[in-house]
Amino acid sequence: MEGGRSSRRWRFASPNPAVAAAGERSVRRYLLDLHGCLDERGPRPVIPLSVGDPSSCPSFRTAPEAVEAVATALRSGEFDGYPSRDTNLAARRAVAEYLSCDLPYKLSPDDVLLTSGCTQAIETVMSVFGQPGVNILLPRPGYPKHEAHAVFHKMEVRHYDLVPERGWEVDLEAVEALADENTVAIVIINPNNPCGSVYTYEHLSKIADTANKLGMLVIADEVYGHLVYGSTPFVPMGVFGETVPLLTLGAISKRWAVPGWRFGWIAICDQKCILKETKVFHSLRSFRMLTGDPATFVLGAIPHIMKNTNDEFFSKIIKLLKETAEICYSEIKEINCITCPHKPEGSFFMMVKLDISQLSDISDDIDFCRKLAKEESVMVLPGTALGMENWLRITFASEPPKLKQGLERVKSFCQRHQSQVN
Amino acid sequence: MEGGRSSRRWRFASPNPAVAAAGERSVRRYLLDLHGCLDERGPRPVIPLSVGDPSSCPSFRTAPEAVEAVATALRSGEFDGYPSRDTNLAARRAVAEYLSCDLPYKLSPDDVLLTSGCTQAIETVMSVFGQPGVNILLPRPGYPKHEAHAVFHKMEVRHYDLVPERGWEVDLEAVEALADENTVAIVIINPNNPCGSVYTYEHLSKIADTANKLGMLVIADEVYGHLVYGSTPFVPMGVFGETVPLLTLGAISKRWAVPGWRFGWIAICDQKCILKETKVFHSLRSFRMLTGDPATFVLGAIPHIMKNTNDEFFSKIIKLLKETAEICYSEIKEINCITCPHKPEGSFFMMVKLDISQLSDISDDIDFCRKLAKEESVMVLPGTALGMENWLRITFASEPPKLKQGLERVKSFCQRHQSQVN
Ligand SMILES: Cc1ncc(COP(=O)(O)O)c(C=O)c1O
Ligand SMILES: Cc1ncc(COP(=O)(O)O)c(C=O)c1O
Repeated sequence: MEGGRSSRRWRFASPNPAVAAAGERSVRRYLLDLHGCLDERGPRPVIPLSVGDPSSCPSFRTAPEAVEAVATALRSGEFDGYPSRDTNLAARRAVAEYLSCDLPYKLSPDDVLLTSGCTQAIETVMSVFGQPGVNILLPRPGYPKHEAHAVFHKMEVRHYDLVPERGWEVDLEAVEALADENTVAIVIINPNNPCGSVYTYEHLSKIADTANKLGMLVIADEVYGHLVYGSTPFVPMGVFGETVPLLTLGAISKRWAVPGWRFGWIAICDQKCILKETKVFHSLRSFRMLTGDPATFVLGAIPHIMKNTNDEFFSKIIKLLKETAEICYSEIKEINCITCPHKPEGSFFMMVKLDISQLSDISDDIDFCRKLAKEESVMVLPGTALGMENWLRITFASEPPKLKQGLERVKSFCQRHQSQVN
Repeated sequence: MEGGRSSRRWRFASPNPAVAAAGERSVRRYLLDLHGCLDERGPRPVIPLSVGDPSSCPSFRTAPEAVEAVATALRSGEFDGYPSRDTNLAARRAVAEYLSCDLPYKLSPDDVLLTSGCTQAIETVMSVFGQPGVNILLPRPGYPKHEAHAVFHKMEVRHYDLVPERGWEVDLEAVEALADENTVAIVIINPNNPCGSVYTYEHLSKIADTANKLGMLVIADEVYGHLVYGSTPFVPMGVFGETVPLLTLGAISKRWAVPGWRFGWIAICDQKCILKETKVFHSLRSFRMLTGDPATFVLGAIPHIMKNTNDEFFSKIIKLLKETAEICYSEIKEINCITCPHKPEGSFFMMVKLDISQLSDISDDIDFCRKLAKEESVMVLPGTALGMENWLRITFASEPPKLKQGLERVKSFCQRHQSQVN
């Protein structure tokens, strides 16, 4: 082999297999596939109801004061370098104060780690806890990046179900049955992607009790924090920091509609100093020292963004989401083969069930989404990408007229493919 | 234990030990320690000659056209979301064209992956190749993040020496002796941090031949690319993409003096399609899909930054570095206990040898740096942080007067601590 042209002589030819395993858990992979199905020369514009990014819609455009804060930081020339200790501290303090508004205690800047979006927060916690021999509880349906990073770090993933009939609440009996002495954490997403559900105080309290009883950490992905418009208010998991140690992951990506700005955090809610007693706290910090920071001028702008964003911006977005959730819910009701078990109250997603038996020539959710993309230039995410075959995730963070149009296309697609028996 | 207050009942109490192992390889750790030694109430301002970040010096301030490009992208509102395929493609094309200027062939946008600074490029390659059972060759002295991420992914690290007497060239005989059938790659840094050396075409060609012979990949960290001011021109390793497959890591951090903007890349120089034949190419892409992107408005600005940055900006910086390298070199010559084996020709660092025997009450390089920080408010990095005990790394990306002042303080410090025997 040596000296031959075959790749066999190259010693790097077999990369880390965990990368491929993790890579299978990716929304992007499904989206790329759907993009490939689109009829690029079709007469109608593509309507994407597939991605959690409202920023391309004019109505969702972020607050001008947030843009100004970043532009000012950029222009000042003071934030071109690696972040100084002061810049970093000021941003951590701003996040601590922002989160503390909704907590019965105060977080300190030292309880906050800054990350490049919520994605890096996920990477960080999974890197710190991940190791062979431990397991982690993730929701089904779930957010694939949690699973991808857990798998990448060789954790065993155990799925607990979210129960559609109970407003997508966590199946806590299942959690108790799944956990064992190697379970390090349970991940919850609230407000929920993909279900659009918002957990009540009581339900969160039960989750905290269960985690405490089982001796596991709660990792609360609250990237959709405050994006609620139903009857259930947003309660941060951190409220239960007395009951159980927890890490809250967040970002400005969704509430400010700026996922491209790449700013997020990990907040350590650990009122009994349990994480501080273990090596967890130190590991989180030391891992963050090895990986990249958010852009410094975004960091420099954070205190202004957090303090000066006008409440009117937030209420405008909430009003809009309430409207688009309503549109989505009522349009879906009109479609025979699709049902929504629970009207969304938070985030900007809805998880709906596909009744394949009512369709003549569609084999499953993936087939449905591919044909829908091809024939109607509408993109929705197959539930399979989130662990639920024959479900669909629809995003309604769109301009209302475009959303309606997209859903009408879904409707006519379903009618066209209705099986004759019905 | 169960139900007790002890942290023992918590199942997450023993985080991934690889994090702690990796965390030990960190420059920041040493800098934090030195910060602790500073006499904050001292009369003289602190002079940091320790960090590779010139952006805080007015003379090194980045090109205004680069700032404008980012500000325009930000203000447009078109780059607040996750990057579109077009935005991503345009940025990859810009990087491909930028790099191709110095290559005997053209890179395509598909040969480029975008990263959040060179740090994420390092994370990515180490994640893709890292696995138990393989080893990687890293330079000594080296850049700790290479080692940290290699260790984090459980690779065995083998150090080859850079030879001060030969202008810090790679000791290629040592490389041959170190490599075995489990060696996946050799990392080189050119222009070099911490040595300030620049490899000749001939030397790079020999590195490529050696890597080819040993069947290993070359990972060329060229984050200091083009920052050269001596007689040796900068030759990108990619020139040898016919000889051996290689990955070039880079960023705008250093040449544009904007490490806080967090934009970098991995370029796949693989003219014989060897990486494409193996799973490496696919793994690199799939890993990047799981991790965060650079800020989208920076991405959107990259085509403008790459095409429109005025040559005068680059020549101004080179002229300045030539001057500060000269100052540093000649001031150090005046200090008995410190010698510089090789005048820097690139990057903005110099590696100098400390003769501890000439000092009365200093035990080693760490002790030297701590006392220097305390007594003189000057910070330099102990060589130990880079794998070379009793050496020091001095950064000269400073305003000339401040640099002179800092080095004078080093000189008087050394005189004060000179042992009586001399
Ligand atoms: C549940 C959840 N967590 C995390 C993220 C990632 O957020 P970011 O864009 O801030 O990295 C998303 C993005 O869609 C998400 O839906
Ligand atoms: C050799 C080397 N590689 C990579 C980096 C990281 O670069 P970035 O700031 O773009 O992440 C540095 C930073 O000092 C460096 O010296």
